[in-house]
Amino acid sequence: DFLLALDEVKPAFGADDAELEDAIPYGIMHFSPSIAAILNDGLLYVENVRQQERLRHTAVLLHGPPASGKTALAAHIAMKSGYPFIKIITPASMVGFRDEVAKKDHLHKIFTDAYKSPLSMLIIDNIERIIEWNPVGPRLSNNILQALVTLLQTPPPKGHRLLILATTSRQSVMEQLDISSAFDREIRVPAVQDTRELAAVLRESGAFEGPAGGVDEVLDRVREYTNGERVGVGIKTILTTAETARLSAQPAEWFAEQIAGQIARYNPLRG
Amino acid sequence: DFLLALDEVKPAFGADDAELEDAIPYGIMHFSPSIAAILNDGLLYVENVRQQERLRHTAVLLHGPPASGKTALAAHIAMKSGYPFIKIITPASMVGFRDEVAKKDHLHKIFTDAYKSPLSMLIIDNIERIIEWNPVGPRLSNNILQALVTLLQTPPPKGHRLLILATTSRQSVMEQLDISSAFDREIRVPAVQDTRELAAVLRESGAFEGPAGGVDEVLDRVREYTNGERVGVGIKTILTTAETARLSAQPAEWFAEQIAGQIARYNPLRG
Amino acid sequence: DFLLALDEVKPAFGADDAELEDAIPYGIMHFSPSIAAILNDGLLYVENVRQQERLRHTAVLLHGPPASGKTALAAHIAMKSGYPFIKIITPASMVGFRDEVAKKDHLHKIFTDAYKSPLSMLIIDNIERIIEWNPVGPRLSNNILQALVTLLQTPPPKGHRLLILATTSRQSVMEQLDISSAFDREIRVPAVQDTRELAAVLRESGAFEGPAGGVDEVLDRVREYTNGERVGVGIKTILTTAETARLSAQPAEWFAEQIAGQIARYNPLRG
Amino acid sequence: DFLLALDEVKPAFGADDAELEDAIPYGIMHFSPSIAAILNDGLLYVENVRQQERLRHTAVLLHGPPASGKTALAAHIAMKSGYPFIKIITPASMVGFRDEVAKKDHLHKIFTDAYKSPLSMLIIDNIERIIEWNPVGPRLSNNILQALVTLLQTPPPKGHRLLILATTSRQSVMEQLDISSAFDREIRVPAVQDTRELAAVLRESGAFEGPAGGVDEVLDRVREYTNGERVGVGIKTILTTAETARLSAQPAEWFAEQIAGQIARYNPLRG
Amino acid sequence: DFLLALDEVKPAFGADDAELEDAIPYGIMHFSPSIAAILNDGLLYVENVRQQERLRHTAVLLHGPPASGKTALAAHIAMKSGYPFIKIITPASMVGFRDEVAKKDHLHKIFTDAYKSPLSMLIIDNIERIIEWNPVGPRLSNNILQALVTLLQTPPPKGHRLLILATTSRQSVMEQLDISSAFDREIRVPAVQDTRELAAVLRESGAFEGPAGGVDEVLDRVREYTNGERVGVGIKTILTTAETARLSAQPAEWFAEQIAGQIARYNPLRG
Amino acid sequence: DFLLALDEVKPAFGADDAELEDAIPYGIMHFSPSIAAILNDGLLYVENVRQQERLRHTAVLLHGPPASGKTALAAHIAMKSGYPFIKIITPASMVGFRDEVAKKDHLHKIFTDAYKSPLSMLIIDNIERIIEWNPVGPRLSNNILQALVTLLQTPPPKGHRLLILATTSRQSVMEQLDISSAFDREIRVPAVQDTRELAAVLRESGAFEGPAGGVDEVLDRVREYTNGERVGVGIKTILTTAETARLSAQPAEWFAEQIAGQIARYNPLRG
Ligand SMILES: Nc1ncnc2c1ncn2[C@@H]1O[C@H](COP(=O)(O)OP(=O)(O)OP(=O)(O)O)[C@@H](O)[C@H]1O
Ligand SMILES: Nc1ncnc2c1ncn2[C@@H]1O[C@H](COP(=O)(O)OP(=O)(O)OP(=O)(O)O)[C@@H](O)[C@H]1O
Ligand SMILES: Nc1ncnc2c1ncn2[C@@H]1O[C@H](COP(=O)(O)OP(=O)(O)OP(=O)(O)O)[C@@H](O)[C@H]1O
Ligand SMILES: Nc1ncnc2c1ncn2[C@@H]1O[C@H](COP(=O)(O)OP(=O)(O)OP(=O)(O)O)[C@@H](O)[C@H]1O
Ligand SMILES: Nc1ncnc2c1ncn2[C@@H]1O[C@H](COP(=O)(O)OP(=O)(O)OP(=O)(O)O)[C@@H](O)[C@H]1O
Ligand SMILES: Nc1ncnc2c1ncn2[C@@H]1O[C@H](COP(=O)(O)OP(=O)(O)OP(=O)(O)O)[C@@H](O)[C@H]1O
Ligand SMILES: [Mg+2]
Ligand SMILES: [Mg+2]
Ligand SMILES: [Mg+2]
Ligand SMILES: [Mg+2]
Ligand SMILES: [Mg+2]
Ligand SMILES: [Mg+2]
Repeated sequence: DFLLALDEVKPAFGADDAELEDAIPYGIMHFSPSIAAILNDGLLYVENVRQQERLRHTAVLLHGPPASGKTALAAHIAMKSGYPFIKIITPASMVGFRDEVAKKDHLHKIFTDAYKSPLSMLIIDNIERIIEWNPVGPRLSNNILQALVTLLQTPPPKGHRLLILATTSRQSVMEQLDISSAFDREIRVPAVQDTRELAAVLRESGAFEGPAGGVDEVLDRVREYTNGERVGVGIKTILTTAETARLSAQPAEWFAEQIAGQIARYNPLRG
Repeated sequence: DFLLALDEVKPAFGADDAELEDAIPYGIMHFSPSIAAILNDGLLYVENVRQQERLRHTAVLLHGPPASGKTALAAHIAMKSGYPFIKIITPASMVGFRDEVAKKDHLHKIFTDAYKSPLSMLIIDNIERIIEWNPVGPRLSNNILQALVTLLQTPPPKGHRLLILATTSRQSVMEQLDISSAFDREIRVPAVQDTRELAAVLRESGAFEGPAGGVDEVLDRVREYTNGERVGVGIKTILTTAETARLSAQPAEWFAEQIAGQIARYNPLRG
Repeated sequence: DFLLALDEVKPAFGADDAELEDAIPYGIMHFSPSIAAILNDGLLYVENVRQQERLRHTAVLLHGPPASGKTALAAHIAMKSGYPFIKIITPASMVGFRDEVAKKDHLHKIFTDAYKSPLSMLIIDNIERIIEWNPVGPRLSNNILQALVTLLQTPPPKGHRLLILATTSRQSVMEQLDISSAFDREIRVPAVQDTRELAAVLRESGAFEGPAGGVDEVLDRVREYTNGERVGVGIKTILTTAETARLSAQPAEWFAEQIAGQIARYNPLRG
Repeated sequence: DFLLALDEVKPAFGADDAELEDAIPYGIMHFSPSIAAILNDGLLYVENVRQQERLRHTAVLLHGPPASGKTALAAHIAMKSGYPFIKIITPASMVGFRDEVAKKDHLHKIFTDAYKSPLSMLIIDNIERIIEWNPVGPRLSNNILQALVTLLQTPPPKGHRLLILATTSRQSVMEQLDISSAFDREIRVPAVQDTRELAAVLRESGAFEGPAGGVDEVLDRVREYTNGERVGVGIKTILTTAETARLSAQPAEWFAEQIAGQIARYNPLRG
Repeated sequence: DFLLALDEVKPAFGADDAELEDAIPYGIMHFSPSIAAILNDGLLYVENVRQQERLRHTAVLLHGPPASGKTALAAHIAMKSGYPFIKIITPASMVGFRDEVAKKDHLHKIFTDAYKSPLSMLIIDNIERIIEWNPVGPRLSNNILQALVTLLQTPPPKGHRLLILATTSRQSVMEQLDISSAFDREIRVPAVQDTRELAAVLRESGAFEGPAGGVDEVLDRVREYTNGERVGVGIKTILTTAETARLSAQPAEWFAEQIAGQIARYNPLRG
Repeated sequence: DFLLALDEVKPAFGADDAELEDAIPYGIMHFSPSIAAILNDGLLYVENVRQQERLRHTAVLLHGPPASGKTALAAHIAMKSGYPFIKIITPASMVGFRDEVAKKDHLHKIFTDAYKSPLSMLIIDNIERIIEWNPVGPRLSNNILQALVTLLQTPPPKGHRLLILATTSRQSVMEQLDISSAFDREIRVPAVQDTRELAAVLRESGAFEGPAGGVDEVLDRVREYTNGERVGVGIKTILTTAETARLSAQPAEWFAEQIAGQIARYNPLRG
């Protein structure tokens, strides 16, 4: 029934490849040794699952602060995997479904599709949103939650293998809801930690270059602001703010202020 | 597929232009330097999004006390933008839908329409009402909330750009529900702060003019009432109360009393 | 489209005129100067809305203790207004609808009808019941609440004007649910405050007249009971209790006892 | 339209007359002066409503401990009224309806039927059950509650009159849910208070008569048990327990024990 | 319409007779005088209801610890009654219905069927499960609860009589939910209290007989364990555990251990 | 109807045999004497149920920490049973059903199928997931819970026998929800307790063998970590982690670290 399966499944290349690429608009920058470690870990599981026999699936949770690069890293690992079936499930791909039952059914269908390929990868992005969690109440869709936890723990049929990469910026919520224990392994994705890492990001991205020596000005100001302590802002925030500055021809000063605002937001005690 | 998209989308001019104009019945008065700053900021994002490539969307939250002019300012920015697709989503435009599922679907449809244009702006007015928030319970539509937060964070397809301007008079609720973090930037819209600003508004609107020297009487009375401290009343309240006074030929005294009542309402400790 | 609108809307005269009259079975008695003030205020808004141009609607909340005459006063103002479209929405007119969605749709339809006339008045009676509020839980229909608040704040289309008079005996609930802020103005309707006002009501209604000198006996007994302090009973209670006494030929004593029971109910500390 | 109404309404005599009689299987015994007072009060309202013109309806709540005779008294008043339309709404008549919406619609229909007759009486029995109240939660049907409270306060159309008698053994629940204030008047139905009243009931019912002098034995034992204090057991309990004793040929002793058990139940501190 | 009714109702003999027998697999053993007392009480009500005229129904609640024999005793009473209509409603007979509305309708239908016979008995087994009670929340079906309480208190039509026997192992829940007051009488079914009663059960059942003198060994061990205090284990547990021991050829020791485990479970303070 | 039943039921061999085997990918290792005891106990019930006559069913709960081997042990017992009807109900087999009603119906259908065979076994795996329990709220499907508890306690028709093996890693939840009392017996499945047991597992599985003497290194490191105290990690975790190490050619050190992480997770006070 393997040949049959190949028939039934539309090639994953193309459509989803574009979607994966789209998740990494600024590429992957090596601003810290932890980036290589994460990719290494991810690819280790890619190879591992490929060879599994008695084990037939592995579920990995990438967690870290907002904007720290979780989705991009998962997409990067997927693109490097060479797996014949790759699918990314995002909250955006769920919005069109009527209600939680329809969403749960869609989730189930994607897993069922993945089971048809001998080697599949599913990225489940922002699982706190997939289960419709919101902090007041608290509220969530128990319907989707139950399906998700069950699917995370169920191996595909014999002769098939499945790697699941999920992302979340709410690890504590995952613990609280007992979702964490459905994963075989967790990988922590850090924010940009200090001004040295910030410098690396800005230099690699080419932001604030030119005669004005903007990068140094940015770093000076941020150092002033943090007084040498933790920066703790996600790389996505840094890169998109830098692009905004560039498009609007804003000076380094404006950029530094924005970053300071973000530091205050995520480090309330100091800000 | 761009030409196709132009075909599918009804021209935004006309219908919504009238709606935008209707949101600014008293024009925009420059009673404080912050007004120019807000408009500047807004137009900066208008230009920025127009040029985006890797980034493809930006979501901005205008928040401020009730009646402070949030909707008018968003509408003004939209009218100045020159964007080919502009749509305003208000709680009133949602009332006709049966239930939260129908509302969520409508919201989704509007975003899907916006994605068809190369350059779109969506104004989402009073998002606390869009999600059906009420302070007792507390209650809200998690269905709409999840869709909204997801749509705020999702870029349009490649080659398309989207600017979202949302308004709220309940910023603390946005924080509580973790909606704030879905915005790229927040702009604070202030109330009319002091009697100097109040004077500017009254003079520009032409209220209480004439031989009776009404404006000065108003200011004297309000000064008496506030004892020189913060006024903190929204410009919409001031302008509509002044019009009410004019239509009913009420004296400056009546107007001052009404304003005093509003000050008491929003500054309970003093009133 | 104004002529068209006239066609579409059934004349408000007749049907609703009878309904308005039916809300004032005992007429309006001037037992206190506040009655004239309330009517004055109401008619001021009637004239004001008639002349509105930039402003196109006003929402006024009549609140006061149970039986204080809120509905009768609103109906009286409506009858005096001369508006071409007048409609009264009561909890009784909502009972026949299946559920909160049907009720919400009905509410919306009435507003939509009102928008077709150039000058409309809507009375929304007992809004705490319209939103299905009950004190245990607390519970309410958030569906209807959201529609109501939105409709209260939405002006009719250009060239149309709308005056909304709503009534409630639960002002604190309105504050709690943040419904109050959707009104442009609040008018307080007082109960019958003291024995002097009570005397005025009894005399104007012709109750306890005749040789037996019943009114004085009533007043003496009530004075005894209240020890000269606040009466605080609604005029509807007084008039219907007096009619009950008359129909059953009960003496002044019986009437005074009933009133005392009501005083105890609404002034628990003393009773 | 009065003649028409007569046509549409099936004669109330017959069907409901049997149902009313069925509610008074043991007749009405005058074991205490309060019984005559209650009947008097009830018939006073029967006559009163008959003559109403400006007033068109009255709602009376009969409340008292379980088994105290509330339903029988309401049925008795109805039978004596001579009203052309009488209908009794019991929880049992509601069981067959699918859900709270169907029950609410049924309630509404019965009121609408009553409005067609010029003079109608509705008995609403055990309103705490009609609204589906249960003490855990607490829970109830807000749907039915809202309809009930609204219908209690709504007069029939002009030229029609309506008397509503409702019963409850949960007056405190009525207060809590703000249902009490929808009634024009409350009548308290007492339990059998002391051994003197108990003796009257037993003698009138003919229980424990014969050579064995059973009534005195019962009274002695109950006196012993209560130590001369309050009995507080409903007349229905007394009469059905006596009938059970008679059918099973149980001695006075057995009866006294059962009554003691009931005293303990409703007077927990002493029992 | 009595002859007609006989036509409509399928004979209760046969089908339900087998079901009743099936509820008493081990017969009724007289291990304590309370057993005869309970049966006596039950049959007293059987005869009583048969003769009722003004009274037309009686509802009796059998309550006691789990496995104490409530269902078997109710079934035994029913089999001895000679009533022409007997029906047992168990949670198992409800599982097949879709939801609480379908279950409520089924319950109602069974009562309606019973009303067609001149003399009916309904056994409602484990009413805490019938109302879907579970201790977390707490949760229950208010829909079914309301129907049940109403049906328990409603007499059949004139000329018909109904005896209801209900069972529960959660008397405190019945009190909490105010279900207890819907019963005319409660009968307590005790567990096997002490080793003397345990001996009686084992001897009558023939367990642990033979040369090995097993019964005495069991008793010695249990005495040791309870230190002469209360046993408090239901007879069903004792009989099924003894049968399990016999089928698996387990020694008296194994049996005693199991019983000790049960004692610990239901007497946590000692165990 | 027994022959008929055989016709209606598809042979359990084949399909479910493969499923049972699939639940034991690493076989059953005898790392502790408790394993033999559990299997013995299980098979004792297999034989017991086979011989039952008056008793017709037994329900056994296997509970223990996550990954301790509950499902494998239940499957092993089933495979050894020789029963003609065996069916395993897992959360995964429930995911495809629309909602809790559909799931409940499916559960019911499986029991009804089992009743058709003279001798059936049902494995209900992870019952906390079957009832959709999640720790926040807490939430669960009362619909499924009620059906499950009822089905656990209901014997099949005469001449049929049923053994139910259920598994859970949340025994305290079962107690809280009063599900435990629906079981006739509980069997505790332990985690791998100490380094001696860990050694037995690793040796039997052939992990870390070869010249490098990996097992000893693992044990040394784990001993270091636990300081000689409890290990408390499930055998599934140990075996799959060892396979992961092997597939990725990770050293003993990596494995020991992973195990240490698990110890920390399940023994938070020490870790
Ligand atoms: N080392 C890196 N790791 C991850 N992303 C990187 C890295 N270097 C550059 N990037 C860029 O940073 C961005 C990371 O954004 P991404 O959406 O992955 O963050 P996220 O953590 O998923 O955010 P969110 O919390 O909103 O889901 C991408 O545009 C990516 O191209
Ligand atoms: N500088 C200004 N900014 C905004 N509005 C202004 C300004 N000057 C005059 N206006 C007028 O004030 C009114 C502002 O009303 P608007 O509805 O925008 O307030 P809002 O803050 O959206 O109120 P709400 O809290 O009710 O949503 C408009 O009529 C607008 O024409
Ligand atoms: N000055 C007055 N103001 C209002 N009503 C008056 C006045 N004088 C007499 N009435 C009579 O008193 C009655 C007032 O009843 P109305 O239903 O308006 O009270 P309400 O406050 O709306 O009661 P509820 O709290 O039950 O809604 C009417 O019958 C009206 O004719
Ligand atoms: N004075 C009396 N008042 C009421 N009922 C009486 C009186 N004398 C005798 N009875 C008999 O007592 C019984 C009263 O029962 P009824 O059902 O009216 O009580 P209830 O208070 O409605 O009970 P519940 O609380 O269960 O609704 C009837 O059978 C009635 O015939
Ligand atoms: N005196 C007795 N009373 C009741 N049952 C007895 C007695 N003697 C023997 N038995 C047997 O004991 C068993 C009692 O089980 P039954 O199902 O009636 O208990 P239960 O209290 O209804 O249990 P549950 O709490 O589970 O509903 C039956 O098999 C019955 O044959
Ligand atoms: N003695 C044993 N008992 C159970 N399983 C064993 C044993 N020896 C080896 N195994 C293997 O260990 C694994 C046990 O996994 P299983 O799924 O049964 O654990 P579980 O306790 O059901 O886990 P979960 O808590 O996730 O449901 C199986 O692969 C099985 O082959
Ligand atoms: Mg992401
Ligand atoms: Mg606004
Ligand atoms: Mg009113
Ligand atoms: Mg009654
Ligand atoms: Mg039972
Ligand atoms: Mg398992």
